[in-house]
Amino acid sequence: MRTSVQLTTERLAGGMVTKSPAGCGAVVEFAGIVRAMEGGREIAGLDYEAYEPMARREIERILDELAVVHPCEAVEVLHRVGHVPAGEASILVRIEAAHRMEAFGLLEEFMIRLKRDVPIWKRVP
Amino acid sequence: MRTSVQLTTERLAGGMVTKSPAGCGAVVEFAGIVRAMEGGREIAGLDYEAYEPMARREIERILDELAVVHPCEAVEVLHRVGHVPAGEASILVRIEAAHRMEAFGLLEEFMIRLKRDVPIWKRVP
Repeated sequence: MRTSVQLTTERLAGGMVTKSPAGCGAVVEFAGIVRAMEGGREIAGLDYEAYEPMARREIERILDELAVVHPCEAVEVLHRVGHVPAGEASILVRIEAAHRMEAFGLLEEFMIRLKRDVPIWKRVP
Repeated sequence: MRTSVQLTTERLAGGMVTKSPAGCGAVVEFAGIVRAMEGGREIAGLDYEAYEPMARREIERILDELAVVHPCEAVEVLHRVGHVPAGEASILVRIEAAHRMEAFGLLEEFMIRLKRDVPIWKRVP
């Protein structure tokens, strides 16, 4: 499974590619967006802080593990760090797979593991 | 839940929007791609045929039902009909939701129901 993991302070831009390599029957793209309302009060954004080398390594490790159960062709993870204004994406995950269920399974489980295990923290500035 | 359902002979183009309305914490886009290999042999594409008024009505009905269990903000369904070359998308689903689990749940179940209940047929030309 090809993987690409990037932490960046730049604004994340999606771009669903609907022309895909042979054998790929499903492309899923997920964007996690900072919501303007958090815990009942309005916020302008969130600050994300990461222990970067370990965060990247941990994401790669999770993807390797998940690839055994949900074998996909390719997974791309982009996580924004620093200030993320409300309405913008803090994370973007793009998966290519032969079949949709493998892509859905990997995506769901990856997001749970990311929030639980990866040293990236968010706070209201 | 806002819904938009379209059947078209045009090539489907995605376009992940990472700037989203307040309250929306998750955007998921799924493309189902025609694979160049189908049942062990190479194909140039698939032909999709739909009983269009009923297909559209049935998709809307499924979305209405799923909205009760997986309440999302908006769902857009684009299904291509006619000839779809291998490597191109036959379906595109775009979901906006407050939380990712609602979007994932709706997407998974919608795709199962679509293939089971909606009068759209595919065949190797």
